[in-house]
Amino acid sequence: MKGLILKLLKDTAPSYLSGEEIAGKLKISRTAVWKNIKSLQKSGYNVEGSPRLGYRLLEVPDLLYPAEISEGLKTRVIAKRPDLIHHFMEVDSTNNRLKELAEEGAPEGTVVIAEEQTGGKGRLGRTWISPRSKGIWLSVLLRPAKPLEEISVFTLLTAVAVARSIRNKFPGIVAGIKWPNDILIKGRKVCGILTELKAEADRLHYLITGIGLNFNSTDYDFPPELKGRATSILLENNGQLLHSRKELAGEILREMDVMYQKYLTSGSGEILLQWKTLNITLGREVTIQNLGETFSGKALDIDQCGALIVAGNDGKKKRFVAGEIITFGTGEAAH
Amino acid sequence: MKGLILKLLKDTAPSYLSGEEIAGKLKISRTAVWKNIKSLQKSGYNVEGSPRLGYRLLEVPDLLYPAEISEGLKTRVIAKRPDLIHHFMEVDSTNNRLKELAEEGAPEGTVVIAEEQTGGKGRLGRTWISPRSKGIWLSVLLRPAKPLEEISVFTLLTAVAVARSIRNKFPGIVAGIKWPNDILIKGRKVCGILTELKAEADRLHYLITGIGLNFNSTDYDFPPELKGRATSILLENNGQLLHSRKELAGEILREMDVMYQKYLTSGSGEILLQWKTLNITLGREVTIQNLGETFSGKALDIDQCGALIVAGNDGKKKRFVAGEIITFGTGEAAH
Repeated sequence: MKGLILKLLKDTAPSYLSGEEIAGKLKISRTAVWKNIKSLQKSGYNVEGSPRLGYRLLEVPDLLYPAEISEGLKTRVIAKRPDLIHHFMEVDSTNNRLKELAEEGAPEGTVVIAEEQTGGKGRLGRTWISPRSKGIWLSVLLRPAKPLEEISVFTLLTAVAVARSIRNKFPGIVAGIKWPNDILIKGRKVCGILTELKAEADRLHYLITGIGLNFNSTDYDFPPELKGRATSILLENNGQLLHSRKELAGEILREMDVMYQKYLTSGSGEILLQWKTLNITLGREVTIQNLGETFSGKALDIDQCGALIVAGNDGKKKRFVAGEIITFGTGEAAH
Repeated sequence: MKGLILKLLKDTAPSYLSGEEIAGKLKISRTAVWKNIKSLQKSGYNVEGSPRLGYRLLEVPDLLYPAEISEGLKTRVIAKRPDLIHHFMEVDSTNNRLKELAEEGAPEGTVVIAEEQTGGKGRLGRTWISPRSKGIWLSVLLRPAKPLEEISVFTLLTAVAVARSIRNKFPGIVAGIKWPNDILIKGRKVCGILTELKAEADRLHYLITGIGLNFNSTDYDFPPELKGRATSILLENNGQLLHSRKELAGEILREMDVMYQKYLTSGSGEILLQWKTLNITLGREVTIQNLGETFSGKALDIDQCGALIVAGNDGKKKRFVAGEIITFGTGEAAH
């Protein structure tokens, strides 16, 4: 009901809508209207009430409410209904919260969004700094009937969706993918992706993809050790933002949904192609670390499984299913 | 201390050992000896006490106590110390209990053994009937630094270890492996294996392998729908048992440990070879079901990943990473 009233107010804004009209349209009492308006105000919506003119919406809060995100979002699986989006002011980590929901049987496409993560996680057990309303901290639940071998495709899928979303909404920003799934802008990391899963040996139970994207952050929001290595959409767009946090969050969900559909219907081909177009890894000299081992060479390609093929200095090729590129050398980037 | 007293009693049985001797050897008080003997008796050990002669061990209970299992078990990782074995009279499922321990940080090689499972699980979400002390219901925790692609090797590894253990301890029984990991005796299932895991896209957190092996069960222990399809070691050995439940449990842990070491040092080659030797799938006509799809043909081989290669009636080969063989036709078995 609160959502319906909000929709009416949005459709009428900046004009007034009387309490009587709202009550009539939604077939509820004037008291119910009043209670829901109070609740909206409590949620941060600036709704002005005038005894004579009624109510009007002056400002929408900068919060990633399900009703805000799902507005106009035409997805087939991911967040396909507003009630699939769970919004929290604070969680330890959106992946952890979504894991709990997944264990309770939450359907595919369920999304957890938080304004703040107190225990945000990155790859390899690292911390992800997630201050309040400074970024897009969200996780998506998928339950694809796919073998474990294809899991890494989902990591690439999400990286592609995020890079595309940034480019779609902020055409001046060239977001590129560092293998396997970091999103960089001019060499600085703007987004990290953490995919976690539960499975039997031959059956995936569920897959949770967490996205941490710095949006409004300024240099003050990053800890000293990340200075010069981390960035945000705001910083890269010269302090201006054409689109809001919620618009970009919606765009990411939409792009993920599109790529997921493509994957389900025609396999990983399109994802790999898109990844190659958006990547900033192939063709460069890299040093890669994996399970304590370090290897240097030229990043040649990724294969069907998303593994990185590196040509060592002796010309021998090595295949990395997992690992981290710790230095990026010279060389022409692929895009 | 209880374990040390038990060991002394076992070494001396069937002779008596005085309380004074025990106290002296272990440097504890006579009261401490008495308390520990009481505790052993409470655990089911039949220890006879005589005021003049001391104590003697008459009977060991048919329970899979850590001290019993780990006796003489020389393993490198799996249950390498008695305190890595957690024994319960009853759990919902050994996999679930071990998952909790894994989340709390239990080390690799931790084992959960239960006398009874109230919610025993099989593959594909099925139930596994696990009545009290009628079988070996145990789970093993591994944390190999391996990519997800190699997970199915662990399923094969466990199947090989179980089949070998049965053959080692009960030479008259020909235990064979039905792809991927059911253990059959004369066409009836004696053991099922359920491998579960938690991972990031490119890093395994842990792997839990659950074993459910019918040992003492008689036909009365199986539900009507399993009649003719399930069996036990007792049933297949003409009602006689040369070795006890705990001896077979220990043998399974030992075989798993050996195969795991081989895998870590030289890859999956030996496991695949052993699997092929012990399998009863290859060379036969099979109908296989996977994700709602049904396919019939001749089982030709398994590949490096443990996937089953089936030649359809039109000669085309199909590869199954996962699935279930629902009918076993005629044809010469591979062994």
